[in-house]
Amino acid sequence: MKVKDFKWKKGIKVKEMVESFGNLGFQSIELAKASEVIVKMKKNSAKIFLTFTSNMVTSGLRGFFAQIVKLGMADVLVTTVGGLEEDIMKATGAKFDIGKFEADDVELHEQGVNRVGNLFINTESYMKFEDWIGPVLQQLYDKKKRWAVSELLKELGLLLDDENSILYQAAKNDVPVFCPAITDGAFGFHLYLFQQNHPDFVVDVVQDFGNILLCTSHDEKKGVIALGGSISKHHAILCTLLNGGAEFAVYLTTAHKTSGSMSGATTNEAKSWGKVKDDSDIATVIGDVTFTFPLAMIRALEQLDEEGLLNG
Amino acid sequence: MKVKDFKWKKGIKVKEMVESFGNLGFQSIELAKASEVIVKMKKNSAKIFLTFTSNMVTSGLRGFFAQIVKLGMADVLVTTVGGLEEDIMKATGAKFDIGKFEADDVELHEQGVNRVGNLFINTESYMKFEDWIGPVLQQLYDKKKRWAVSELLKELGLLLDDENSILYQAAKNDVPVFCPAITDGAFGFHLYLFQQNHPDFVVDVVQDFGNILLCTSHDEKKGVIALGGSISKHHAILCTLLNGGAEFAVYLTTAHKTSGSMSGATTNEAKSWGKVKDDSDIATVIGDVTFTFPLAMIRALEQLDEEGLLNG
Amino acid sequence: MKVKDFKWKKGIKVKEMVESFGNLGFQSIELAKASEVIVKMKKNSAKIFLTFTSNMVTSGLRGFFAQIVKLGMADVLVTTVGGLEEDIMKATGAKFDIGKFEADDVELHEQGVNRVGNLFINTESYMKFEDWIGPVLQQLYDKKKRWAVSELLKELGLLLDDENSILYQAAKNDVPVFCPAITDGAFGFHLYLFQQNHPDFVVDVVQDFGNILLCTSHDEKKGVIALGGSISKHHAILCTLLNGGAEFAVYLTTAHKTSGSMSGATTNEAKSWGKVKDDSDIATVIGDVTFTFPLAMIRALEQLDEEGLLNG
Amino acid sequence: MKVKDFKWKKGIKVKEMVESFGNLGFQSIELAKASEVIVKMKKNSAKIFLTFTSNMVTSGLRGFFAQIVKLGMADVLVTTVGGLEEDIMKATGAKFDIGKFEADDVELHEQGVNRVGNLFINTESYMKFEDWIGPVLQQLYDKKKRWAVSELLKELGLLLDDENSILYQAAKNDVPVFCPAITDGAFGFHLYLFQQNHPDFVVDVVQDFGNILLCTSHDEKKGVIALGGSISKHHAILCTLLNGGAEFAVYLTTAHKTSGSMSGATTNEAKSWGKVKDDSDIATVIGDVTFTFPLAMIRALEQLDEEGLLNG
Repeated sequence: MKVKDFKWKKGIKVKEMVESFGNLGFQSIELAKASEVIVKMKKNSAKIFLTFTSNMVTSGLRGFFAQIVKLGMADVLVTTVGGLEEDIMKATGAKFDIGKFEADDVELHEQGVNRVGNLFINTESYMKFEDWIGPVLQQLYDKKKRWAVSELLKELGLLLDDENSILYQAAKNDVPVFCPAITDGAFGFHLYLFQQNHPDFVVDVVQDFGNILLCTSHDEKKGVIALGGSISKHHAILCTLLNGGAEFAVYLTTAHKTSGSMSGATTNEAKSWGKVKDDSDIATVIGDVTFTFPLAMIRALEQLDEEGLLNG
Repeated sequence: MKVKDFKWKKGIKVKEMVESFGNLGFQSIELAKASEVIVKMKKNSAKIFLTFTSNMVTSGLRGFFAQIVKLGMADVLVTTVGGLEEDIMKATGAKFDIGKFEADDVELHEQGVNRVGNLFINTESYMKFEDWIGPVLQQLYDKKKRWAVSELLKELGLLLDDENSILYQAAKNDVPVFCPAITDGAFGFHLYLFQQNHPDFVVDVVQDFGNILLCTSHDEKKGVIALGGSISKHHAILCTLLNGGAEFAVYLTTAHKTSGSMSGATTNEAKSWGKVKDDSDIATVIGDVTFTFPLAMIRALEQLDEEGLLNG
Repeated sequence: MKVKDFKWKKGIKVKEMVESFGNLGFQSIELAKASEVIVKMKKNSAKIFLTFTSNMVTSGLRGFFAQIVKLGMADVLVTTVGGLEEDIMKATGAKFDIGKFEADDVELHEQGVNRVGNLFINTESYMKFEDWIGPVLQQLYDKKKRWAVSELLKELGLLLDDENSILYQAAKNDVPVFCPAITDGAFGFHLYLFQQNHPDFVVDVVQDFGNILLCTSHDEKKGVIALGGSISKHHAILCTLLNGGAEFAVYLTTAHKTSGSMSGATTNEAKSWGKVKDDSDIATVIGDVTFTFPLAMIRALEQLDEEGLLNG
Repeated sequence: MKVKDFKWKKGIKVKEMVESFGNLGFQSIELAKASEVIVKMKKNSAKIFLTFTSNMVTSGLRGFFAQIVKLGMADVLVTTVGGLEEDIMKATGAKFDIGKFEADDVELHEQGVNRVGNLFINTESYMKFEDWIGPVLQQLYDKKKRWAVSELLKELGLLLDDENSILYQAAKNDVPVFCPAITDGAFGFHLYLFQQNHPDFVVDVVQDFGNILLCTSHDEKKGVIALGGSISKHHAILCTLLNGGAEFAVYLTTAHKTSGSMSGATTNEAKSWGKVKDDSDIATVIGDVTFTFPLAMIRALEQLDEEGLLNG
């Protein structure tokens, strides 16, 4: 394939731009490939695992994740608990602010503002979450004492009413949400407080391992879209590994492979483990997920929509 | 402070080199600062949280982590499960190989070799782990049915006999090991298999949240040494946040703050959250932990040793 | 400003997407800002300096750079010589291939294929350049013996006939092309060979410093769009510094500020030098220029086009 | 080769630490390899090209570069002009300050302080340079009218008297200093001012291309130590390419290969071009040069010193 000189055309659509990236070098071509692999996942009826980290929910990609679930482009979600807390905060009215990377952190602290890169979250938003989660835990406990994490998260989703909520759309569309470190956030603290008064209350992470393990099979085709790194990514590919390897995988990340970290681990490295199949379709794109993911996914959505392959 | 021209002296020691980094620009000065902050943690009798990711155990820093625990330079460990599995593999005889980043992953897969950056782990090593963990779980179950994660990890450490093992040294020195996503690895799979036959076996992550929360207090001084990112880092600073903030923090990472990720979050950002105190001593160093950590920590160890502040 | 949940709309245009990036976190918001700063440069009739590195020409952005010149969105170009050589190769028929980062470099070498990341350039393309440049140098020499670099590059542009050529569009639109290290490439070798037989042939870099210095003034508003780092970026901001500082600056790069390099130097750092004015409009975006630049620039072009501010 | 658990030994020397890095993963092993390649360059009497960027001179590595020249470990230097200006400033008494990455740049500007990452350079230092360079240019002009860059830089070195000066040691030890973009800095401005009054004054970059080209040959073994990227790196490997390729190459950089830039180009990529030989000894290390270079080079110096292979 030849490099083609990129040109602007008046009124150019995202789809056209990403397609022309297929003839541009460096990360653009990888991004165009990633988009194609996503299309293939869907066309091959693969079970699609979408993984993301909390900061992406903070960023405003939350609504997009919810939309993707609704459109049937994600069959399993894996994420960290911070993002789920924020999903609930937003569903119950919190707003996050756009700030600056260079803000004065001591001053922010005095104002009760918590910084995530160039975004600001008020401490009040956490208090809202606290107000909401307390009674909910009681309600869950009244149903039963022992909960697998994904079961519990489904219940939370059913209690929300927000089209843009990840938990809401996941619950409504029967998409399980896995969160292997459920206690690593404010939610963990509230679970702990609740358990203090209800010692027989158990959050069963071991049972949930069974749930992700059995959510697919060797026979089913599998695709992974991993945004960023962390245990979200690792947990999904551990599941595909134990189910014979994924046929399709797309990793979008800012991390490089040179430090041997999970965040920077490539789709190629995944082959050595059997996390993806030897002959799988794979792509790794280096760049901020807040633009690489919209670019790659929108091109895929447009094409799948034209072919009538999206839900709704 | 002035920049001073760096010069080589025959037979130069690590301590001297890092000290002269204090007058070199860019990441060298940050590294020298990090080393000083580590010294201050110890001199101020802070409770020291050391967090690291699995790949650092793979890298061979494992023996150094174990040594640090033995020397009394880490009071709490937080990590991911993959590294603990590997710690056990090595303690029971497995050896990892140095390979290449550019290895042919399909070929490796055929040979049963799993790649982590430029390191290779044989699938056999995982089988060794499997052989070891099975009877151990039965033994634990016989003692009691419900285990907090750190309790369980302590039991594993007591069963090992290897000076270079993290779990062994931690158990021996009463240093708790927290692992908020205990199921995210081969260990999770074995826990799951065991629970299938012993449904009343419970790994209690909520209780363990209480354990990390109560392992320190508002009154105690606290220091964090976070290597890499992930939930290991987040879990430690969540604990210090809930205990009034750390007085000292050192982050060593390859990730940049520009993507808003936890891996790249700086010690400054931590102030806005109260994860570290407003007037805390902090340093963030960008670079591969396999050299930044030995450099910063060895300089600190040498100085503390001279002042008789290390154990043993 | 609040974070807004990003959503896909069928048929979404690049312009709309970048505008919604204005409410997304991390690098997306910075990219939206960069786009706005570019619009302001034009609306304020600033002299626009566009700088880029050779690999961006290799990538296929070449045609876009040429188009930008044609549209009146760049008044001064600064670049490295490799990209200019490739501009000529392409203008005289060479095609570059899309390859792989992981290609076998020894094999490529045997095949006469030179790799630039995931792109391949045939050694033949360099021979074409050689064939073309020889007679051209003679022609220039016949006109006069001493050439400032930008004068010489203009003559080359006038000899090409390719709408997508940077040198062609620059020459046709009276946009000077500065190249402070004109000998750092195959072109340097051919200049050297020519000078061997024509010792009075002089390429005058000092005179060209005067040309860039005097191409603007303290009174004129100035904007810088720096893609990547290197001397291209530095040369442009040295010129704006000596002319009182730029009012507008946009840096798009993959490099981080942590190593103190020019590639990673931020628009903020530029303020300390007076390279940009204290109250200037600035933005720094971290990411692969092959997607950040089309995104930021296309949004600007669409808006400026609507307002009738583009040439042609 | 097996991974070996790293351990601290009291009083550990840099040499020992880097040697144990040979059994540590990720960038540590690459750093140990780089050190070995440097030793081989010297043992094989290769002509050693050392390239670095200006910010490394700012950082305080300047004295180390000068020492390396004195010890006979660099036969050719290639760099950018900013570093040479600073070398002269320091040789004539200027001091640089260690500051902060997060400094207020507007305030710095008001104080006449220019920031380079976390280092500060006073505007006064530039004025000192100005005072020094004016009469020197007149002196050079009185000798002859047309100067190749490296000739001119040698004259400057002969006028300095500072053991820690790069230009001084280079001149004294007959090590040529190449600077392919000699006008890209304050020096360029002064050359321009001088030429205004002396129009027959010529800085001949084309002739200097011949000087670097002919400073070695196909028959001689060649080694490249490239610190950072930019034209310094490219110019050295262009020279080795035209002389049949280097036998040894070490690249230390913070840039990654994913963007196709020269800064991130690997020693493997160099093989496709013939910049290094197909069977050459090569290593690429990712990390801040202010620690990777002292580490790799000191280990090499210690070994070469033991074997009596250093000058003096």
